[in-house]
Amino acid sequence: MVVTKKMDLRTKGNCDIIDITGQVKQEVSGSGINSGTVTIFVAGSTGGVTTIENEPGLLSDFQDMWERNAPRNIPYQHDRAWGDGNGHSHVRASLLGPSLVVPFTNKSLHLGTWQQIVLVDFDNRPRSRELVLQIMGD
Amino acid sequence: MVVTKKMDLRTKGNCDIIDITGQVKQEVSGSGINSGTVTIFVAGSTGGVTTIENEPGLLSDFQDMWERNAPRNIPYQHDRAWGDGNGHSHVRASLLGPSLVVPFTNKSLHLGTWQQIVLVDFDNRPRSRELVLQIMGD
Amino acid sequence: MVVTKKMDLRTKGNCDIIDITGQVKQEVSGSGINSGTVTIFVAGSTGGVTTIENEPGLLSDFQDMWERNAPRNIPYQHDRAWGDGNGHSHVRASLLGPSLVVPFTNKSLHLGTWQQIVLVDFDNRPRSRELVLQIMGD
Repeated sequence: MVVTKKMDLRTKGNCDIIDITGQVKQEVSGSGINSGTVTIFVAGSTGGVTTIENEPGLLSDFQDMWERNAPRNIPYQHDRAWGDGNGHSHVRASLLGPSLVVPFTNKSLHLGTWQQIVLVDFDNRPRSRELVLQIMGD
Repeated sequence: MVVTKKMDLRTKGNCDIIDITGQVKQEVSGSGINSGTVTIFVAGSTGGVTTIENEPGLLSDFQDMWERNAPRNIPYQHDRAWGDGNGHSHVRASLLGPSLVVPFTNKSLHLGTWQQIVLVDFDNRPRSRELVLQIMGD
Repeated sequence: MVVTKKMDLRTKGNCDIIDITGQVKQEVSGSGINSGTVTIFVAGSTGGVTTIENEPGLLSDFQDMWERNAPRNIPYQHDRAWGDGNGHSHVRASLLGPSLVVPFTNKSLHLGTWQQIVLVDFDNRPRSRELVLQIMGD
């Protein structure tokens, strides 16, 4: 059994981290599927999905890690060729990955208490994002 | 068809890397499902799941990479706010990701010969961990 | 319903990035499954799978990121023990991860317009690679 749900989000870009846990729980709970997995996928090559403890200090720490490891202000061939200024956004998104798979049973996600599902928008400007939730199981 | 299995592990924390391949193989093989995927998910925001060649040199190299890219001894806002001292653990876990999906057919995982499934515990202290194996297929 | 497809690829190694989107689309479209997920998995501990905008500048930027964050020319315990010279390859692959899950409906993958599925071969020599596509759904 497969149920597909779409979520439209508005982001601020620039490593904006948006907690989508509540919406994912709601869609899973209302899907009619009792036990299985939900695949959260962001269409686009400058966004990623992961889990984090949604606490302002950590969101800032996570953003700082990206700034150290794929800095905004170094030369990117992508920017030289296309002038988009978002070479760092693409590199970060490819490293983090566009999808996350979370198991659930009895309509309940197996998340830790302080573990939230987040979309990370690495682009260098506000974006409209479409996420697909593919809910599969019995 | 969906079969849910739980695994309880004790870790040493501090980038402890624990090979769970044998247990995953056993659970898949005993699940009654012939072909499908197993989703390995760690509940909690300071653990991650990936594959690695389980060889002491590489485990050390992988730990060194984390120390370079998300060092323990730099300031974290999380530590300033909460005093847990595990800001680096959270950042590492969010980058690696809490889940891994491995396909299998004829009850056999499609792993390479030197490719093992591991839990990485980034927390700064020993932990009890619960992993969920969501086995789905025909 | 589960359909398993295998893809054999030849790579150049050394962070070779190979666009497999066309083949994945074709296998999904011909699988007889209308809606579900495809899990793309690379067997072996020096390869990874992700998405990227397949544009020469970005491929180079992505390779540069790996060179900064898991450099080829630093000492690795793996190389000291085994003399393979590919310690960096293993570390990179474990960070990126060997699998990607992409949802589809009406036989069509939910990718962004400039979002391609790629195999990244981190090994330090040309390789033959086997990818497994596990296509599951209704």
